[in-house]
Amino acid sequence: MPRVRVHNFSVSLDGFGTGEGQSLDAPFGHAGVRLHEWFFATRTFHAMQGQPGGSTGIDDAFASAWETGIGAEIMGRGKFGPDHGPWPDKEPDKQWNGWWGDNPPFHTPVFVLTHHPRPSVPMDGGTTFHFLDASPAEALAQARAAAAGADIRIGGGPSTIREFLSAGLIDYLHIVVVPIVLGRGERLWDGQEALEDHFQIEAVHSPSGVTHLTLSRR
Amino acid sequence: MPRVRVHNFSVSLDGFGTGEGQSLDAPFGHAGVRLHEWFFATRTFHAMQGQPGGSTGIDDAFASAWETGIGAEIMGRGKFGPDHGPWPDKEPDKQWNGWWGDNPPFHTPVFVLTHHPRPSVPMDGGTTFHFLDASPAEALAQARAAAAGADIRIGGGPSTIREFLSAGLIDYLHIVVVPIVLGRGERLWDGQEALEDHFQIEAVHSPSGVTHLTLSRR
Repeated sequence: MPRVRVHNFSVSLDGFGTGEGQSLDAPFGHAGVRLHEWFFATRTFHAMQGQPGGSTGIDDAFASAWETGIGAEIMGRGKFGPDHGPWPDKEPDKQWNGWWGDNPPFHTPVFVLTHHPRPSVPMDGGTTFHFLDASPAEALAQARAAAAGADIRIGGGPSTIREFLSAGLIDYLHIVVVPIVLGRGERLWDGQEALEDHFQIEAVHSPSGVTHLTLSRR
Repeated sequence: MPRVRVHNFSVSLDGFGTGEGQSLDAPFGHAGVRLHEWFFATRTFHAMQGQPGGSTGIDDAFASAWETGIGAEIMGRGKFGPDHGPWPDKEPDKQWNGWWGDNPPFHTPVFVLTHHPRPSVPMDGGTTFHFLDASPAEALAQARAAAAGADIRIGGGPSTIREFLSAGLIDYLHIVVVPIVLGRGERLWDGQEALEDHFQIEAVHSPSGVTHLTLSRR
């Protein structure tokens, strides 16, 4: 049975997965890039950007696991772009297709959850963005069909992960605790009391200062 | 200069330092003992109880550091007992002197913060409970005088630690992240945005599953 997986999802010590005040220029709000510096330093991220180099230690070992065996991703609209409500009414050839550039790093179908569906957008490199107004279970069924037997990645943000967790649909999470206190934003763990009853949780620290958690469904 | 230190303070993944519903029979509310199992397993805790045995690995190394060089403790009233408001009016010889037994493990002066001062209570083994209605800075001044040059421990609970952090009075914290999601209770990190600007934070995991954080004032 294909698994449903979360990878490389960073939270602050106080459990915020994004900061407050997301905008086009600030995808993570007041958190800036501080939740993701451990990831940006890795060889895996460098390779995504077509750049050489990058760290090859513990952080990269975790980072690189994000792609293996994945056949589709499901993400919240906030991971695609900062807009809320109806999509801006622009000419199709001027359409803004998210934060991920012409050749997004996913290389699979990506299902963007939104109450405002729009036509699918094929991108370079094998990524196609589909837009769904669907429950977690419905979205997962569509993603499974598209993934053709491979695993599904739940890409975030925090509220999307929470919804899939609350629906009991996630098999594995890799969560990275970054030693900063954000104070505000969107929390990952809210509504997840006693999550440990359903997951085996392991922790390992990295020389970079972050702690990697793995949560594996029992 | 003597330092102000926090030791062995456990929080859940979602940052709760105590659960909801503290009472005489449930000092940690719905959290039960789950935040403290790592500590109860250590040789340090066993010795506090006059018992042999206990683990002697990473968890015990951290646990044992709590006593070294400490001359006084400051704690919130909730760490002394579950009562709020005026103290129950009982005969002095029937007075309940907290959760810590006849021979509390502190063996120093202990300053209990309360809006309802009462006479000091000397206990066996060198612990004396003093009851103060005072600001963090005032309480610290009294504790420093009593500690005669030794360090001061801030014993918790979460709100007491937060108050001392917000006042900039803490030099060192040892925080233990336990892999459970409590969902409700009292949070440690609230109001501490950008704490990392003031502390060097390190993390190390333990085979027991917990992660020890040290926060050292820059």
